[in-house]
Amino acid sequence: MKPISCFILIYRSEANDLALRLAWQYTGHKDIITLDNAYHGHVSSLIDISPYKFHQMAGAEPSQHVHVALSPDTYRGKYREDHPDPATAYAENVKEVIEEAHKKGHEIAAFIAESLQSCGGQVIPPMGYFQKVAQHVRNAGGIFIADEVQVGFGRVGTHFWGFQLQGEDFVPDIVTMGKPIGNGHPMSCVITSREIAESFMSSGMEYFNTFGGNPVSCAIGLAVLNVIEKEDLQGNALHVGGYLTQLLEDLKKRHPLVGDVRGRGLFVGLELVRNQSKRTPATAEAQEVIYRLKEQRILLSADGPHRNVLKFKPPMCFSREDAEFAVEKIDQILTDLEKAMVLQRPEAAILETGHIKRKDASDENGLVHPSNGNSHKHTSTIPLSKKTKRN
Amino acid sequence: MKPISCFILIYRSEANDLALRLAWQYTGHKDIITLDNAYHGHVSSLIDISPYKFHQMAGAEPSQHVHVALSPDTYRGKYREDHPDPATAYAENVKEVIEEAHKKGHEIAAFIAESLQSCGGQVIPPMGYFQKVAQHVRNAGGIFIADEVQVGFGRVGTHFWGFQLQGEDFVPDIVTMGKPIGNGHPMSCVITSREIAESFMSSGMEYFNTFGGNPVSCAIGLAVLNVIEKEDLQGNALHVGGYLTQLLEDLKKRHPLVGDVRGRGLFVGLELVRNQSKRTPATAEAQEVIYRLKEQRILLSADGPHRNVLKFKPPMCFSREDAEFAVEKIDQILTDLEKAMVLQRPEAAILETGHIKRKDASDENGLVHPSNGNSHKHTSTIPLSKKTKRN
Repeated sequence: MKPISCFILIYRSEANDLALRLAWQYTGHKDIITLDNAYHGHVSSLIDISPYKFHQMAGAEPSQHVHVALSPDTYRGKYREDHPDPATAYAENVKEVIEEAHKKGHEIAAFIAESLQSCGGQVIPPMGYFQKVAQHVRNAGGIFIADEVQVGFGRVGTHFWGFQLQGEDFVPDIVTMGKPIGNGHPMSCVITSREIAESFMSSGMEYFNTFGGNPVSCAIGLAVLNVIEKEDLQGNALHVGGYLTQLLEDLKKRHPLVGDVRGRGLFVGLELVRNQSKRTPATAEAQEVIYRLKEQRILLSADGPHRNVLKFKPPMCFSREDAEFAVEKIDQILTDLEKAMVLQRPEAAILETGHIKRKDASDENGLVHPSNGNSHKHTSTIPLSKKTKRN
Repeated sequence: MKPISCFILIYRSEANDLALRLAWQYTGHKDIITLDNAYHGHVSSLIDISPYKFHQMAGAEPSQHVHVALSPDTYRGKYREDHPDPATAYAENVKEVIEEAHKKGHEIAAFIAESLQSCGGQVIPPMGYFQKVAQHVRNAGGIFIADEVQVGFGRVGTHFWGFQLQGEDFVPDIVTMGKPIGNGHPMSCVITSREIAESFMSSGMEYFNTFGGNPVSCAIGLAVLNVIEKEDLQGNALHVGGYLTQLLEDLKKRHPLVGDVRGRGLFVGLELVRNQSKRTPATAEAQEVIYRLKEQRILLSADGPHRNVLKFKPPMCFSREDAEFAVEKIDQILTDLEKAMVLQRPEAAILETGHIKRKDASDENGLVHPSNGNSHKHTSTIPLSKKTKRN
């Protein structure tokens, strides 16, 4: 174990911004490789490396120092579950991105990725992908930043950190942490090697942060770690998460709307599709599910580039009963939706043939274009939603 | 009063970064004008507009979209207390900066300044300066951002906000707030016109912030406002701050090291110089003062570009007794220092003639070059410090 350095900060965005500054200073390079659909925070330097955000802006282009690699999504991405070696194939894409950057005279400071892509659609990178990416990036003089803000602290069940899912032979150069570290209290952290931290300090610019390392936040952080350990929340994530995934797998067998179930511990995605073979994103249906769940006091979000992935990332104290309750409600809603859509498992493509006109509700990519211009309001443009009772 | 919008955030840097994003989106321009020696936060977008920070990096140049205007410092700046109209003169400099940017084909999104420059050396801009700057900036299609992170919430005594010192005819387009808003709890805020906020929302990119507007932080913010009101902390800042300034003015009459006393309420600067007429920054002496004060359990910092301005920005409950105690200690330390330097009021220039060789401790600009390469350690290079007792 090499010596490490730790910066205790306040906010996720501070952590990822500091990670970039560390990378820039340590490598002397300027360019960052990020994954498609990635989200790393809301300050301007992080929006630059968050396609999830800058794709929202009409005509937005990434900064010339930001390069977007393929998301290692084996369900909807370029290389899928039927590919013999998606880890190598996706890592090769990063290598190509590096070569393209070099051709323009640019040098890579860092590759950054969530250990499991969260807002990007609950994507679980194929095992071995990070090792191969790290090799390409380090060969180019860059470093590997693992963003554990949404997925760290035992959530994946088998391990404390998401990046550990890749295997024991993988260690990132920088790990950033946030959200769960303070269980609601604003707090974040950057862990890196002493070598990288010292190169930053030697730049001449001191790192100053008003609330950084303040004793109240540190006490909260320690208390959270104690509770995770004493209440075995990592174990809970493993067992309840496994049970939740099993329940969702059962749903998949019965519901043509369910295209994919994927998860590790209490980090699970349920991807809805209108057509099992074409994998057409069921965006409007996913919105319908979350709105109807909300009426029953269950808060869930639909995320991913097509907003068709139901995102399970519940509190770590989530129980088997909670899992059963949520899945039961989802089961009912999916049944209602499919009934209205005249969708049955064997005729999964029926929607595509026009039995119900729903094209007006979304485009080919499943992006909703409601007539009132506001996709967040509960004035659904889906005909079938009129059949459900509302207050 | 026009309708305003308010973003409740967590961290000063979030607030100023959001202010820049609002300015970029509202104006469609990219360039920012900042003041020399300014400090606006520690994430990368704000280091770009903080000469106080990027001057620390050897060979650092501002971003091509950042333009640095003169600090409106009437003691050490280009236009001083003997200038007939420093407000207009300094504002003209901003106009020149705009014209230079236009020549390069750049357009101004915003001018940003602390309402009173804090880390920059407790600089109080001449009255009317902001109005004239705002006129030039708005004529160029830009907006005015007032950073109240260090100076807002009643500290200036006569007013609740620092920018109000400029006169009732001045209203910024965006005001950012931080530190005192939560009295130690991480919290910040951006206030702007509804027009600017709506232009941001219409960009298509939602503003998402995990902890933004959370009820715990908001409750803390409301409690702080209540205490400021109930305990009349603004009135306290006015009265105790006035008394403190008066005590420091008395020091100035007796101590040749004191070049300038300036302040509003509990925001006061005491600028130390080695030579009253040349105003040579007494950087090493200022360090000596703060180290010796620390031994007596008084925490004060020396700031400004030459780190020779003793910065008074105490808690708002600071009392007359506290003021007397601090000034008494400073009085003693200055007396000791001057004795060692053979400095007496009428012979203020004596140091320059070489009675004590101190040039090795700092350069012409007062920047310390200690032999161990670390100006923060308490191993002073000032000969006289050896005469003081230390543990």
